[in-house]
Amino acid sequence: MSEPGAGVAYLGPEGTFTHEAVLEWARRAGVDAPAGGTRALESVGEVHDAVARSAAARGVVAIESSVEGYVVPSVDALLGSADVVAVDEVVLPISFDAFVRPGHGELTEATAHPHGLAQVSRFVVAHGLRPVPASSNAAACRDVAPHQVAFGPRVCGDLYGLETLARGVEDFRGARTRFLVLARRDEARGVLAATRDAVDPGATAWRTMLAVTPVVTGPGVLARITAAFGERRVNMSSLVTRPLKASAQQYVFVVTLDAAPWDAPVRALLRDLLAAGDSLKVLGAYPGDPGEGGLDGVLPDHVPLGSVVAGDADLDRGLLW
Amino acid sequence: MSEPGAGVAYLGPEGTFTHEAVLEWARRAGVDAPAGGTRALESVGEVHDAVARSAAARGVVAIESSVEGYVVPSVDALLGSADVVAVDEVVLPISFDAFVRPGHGELTEATAHPHGLAQVSRFVVAHGLRPVPASSNAAACRDVAPHQVAFGPRVCGDLYGLETLARGVEDFRGARTRFLVLARRDEARGVLAATRDAVDPGATAWRTMLAVTPVVTGPGVLARITAAFGERRVNMSSLVTRPLKASAQQYVFVVTLDAAPWDAPVRALLRDLLAAGDSLKVLGAYPGDPGEGGLDGVLPDHVPLGSVVAGDADLDRGLLW
Repeated sequence: MSEPGAGVAYLGPEGTFTHEAVLEWARRAGVDAPAGGTRALESVGEVHDAVARSAAARGVVAIESSVEGYVVPSVDALLGSADVVAVDEVVLPISFDAFVRPGHGELTEATAHPHGLAQVSRFVVAHGLRPVPASSNAAACRDVAPHQVAFGPRVCGDLYGLETLARGVEDFRGARTRFLVLARRDEARGVLAATRDAVDPGATAWRTMLAVTPVVTGPGVLARITAAFGERRVNMSSLVTRPLKASAQQYVFVVTLDAAPWDAPVRALLRDLLAAGDSLKVLGAYPGDPGEGGLDGVLPDHVPLGSVVAGDADLDRGLLW
Repeated sequence: MSEPGAGVAYLGPEGTFTHEAVLEWARRAGVDAPAGGTRALESVGEVHDAVARSAAARGVVAIESSVEGYVVPSVDALLGSADVVAVDEVVLPISFDAFVRPGHGELTEATAHPHGLAQVSRFVVAHGLRPVPASSNAAACRDVAPHQVAFGPRVCGDLYGLETLARGVEDFRGARTRFLVLARRDEARGVLAATRDAVDPGATAWRTMLAVTPVVTGPGVLARITAAFGERRVNMSSLVTRPLKASAQQYVFVVTLDAAPWDAPVRALLRDLLAAGDSLKVLGAYPGDPGEGGLDGVLPDHVPLGSVVAGDADLDRGLLW
């Protein structure tokens, strides 16, 4: 973990899960709150700008959710940002607490962002509350009326001086979100060297987030790239394609490697890809969150229902060929 | 395009962009409204169930947005659904109109879903309106007060008897969403045969959405699968990985092919993958929306800023190795 420096910018408002990720990241670095304070900004682009201009030492943005997959605007911001790179990650459970005003009256309404209300629907129905949408969970907690229950991350209780009526009231447990900690690219190698000195090498699984842009495209291009990974025995734990220009059918491949960029097999792999003419950009390098264990899938079983394998009597039904 | 049968179920409420996609799909099939009517349901799972139980002839759900990427819950529902498959697609521009009550008073507030309000922020600021969040854009239009401007898809005007104050007031033009039309898997081959008879083969670009679940995983598995695509000269226009069970590091690969499942190279490819032991499931087969032209990327240029190529003086900066 790298040390918080002159403040942490994050996608606000205050009291969001991203705010909670900032505080959790500081706690893991052994401090109560980030040195230089925290700053809630209005867009992922503003967070990148603040880090690039050194207006903030670090930035924090959500990158992937176990339910919704990649946060594509965050991926695109990293792709489009020349001077910002991820140097750490934090994985948080997405859990809602129910808050009320101290000395509240009879509780008749439930308030949160519409997505938040959807995630606590059982609690709302069980308590006979009328749902009232808010612009964000944080705004719901800040503005909660004496006859309302507001739902949000734990941080909202302290932030707005509320009483906690119940903890962990989400309909489904286990949803988690992964956040990236951003730093200036020119500082990144120094930050990562300090992290390497600080962590236990045996207990740390490094990850590298890499953008590969092939010069030519068409059938076979992804095969060539993935063959290069296989030859160097570098495992990729996820792959996303993002279109560059639809008319040209050009794509950038965003892959996450289960290794650090300075590991010998990764260096060899990067040299192979460069030799093939690909443009490369490391979007992040960070020690995997030790509490992570990946973002669980929400699929009911191992193989998608209705799949067929060789020898099945009814291949036509599964394949529609 | 396949004919709407006994009603179309969609992810509601009424007046959403998905509702608009249902009406557009019917228009393209040459009817004013889907035979058997339309039914707004409360979740993607309910839409799948309605189609599987034949309570609806078709279902419509959003699958991909040009800004947000894949709608992962829709992808996961297709993966988890044994009896439902996509047989058509509709691509719609995501455009907001500004609506008012007939005979409205002085306009002082703007109301929509928080996401909707974020997308029309320039209009709201320019007109000095105070933003008021609603649970959905449709609910905002349905419940709009005489002092409010509500924002939503065009369909809301007719649906709720509103006057259109201005058309296309979104901050950024060009956002588009792709919707899938779902049918029962047992009917799909008949539906697709009818579509093949109806469309102009020369002007129709078929697409196949395929789930590939490898038996073994680790370095080299995606290389093997993509090599099979390259050998058969089948182009894939997108690839998403979804985790099956995090502890086992198992993934399913969801690919979209630029071909129909019955095309000879695709049949050969599917046989290759089956022979290698992979589980396969065709999630959809459909003629590409002729007005589509892909979902444009939002990246500023062809190659991500800060990328490096072979021979660059400062590889270290780009690669952090």
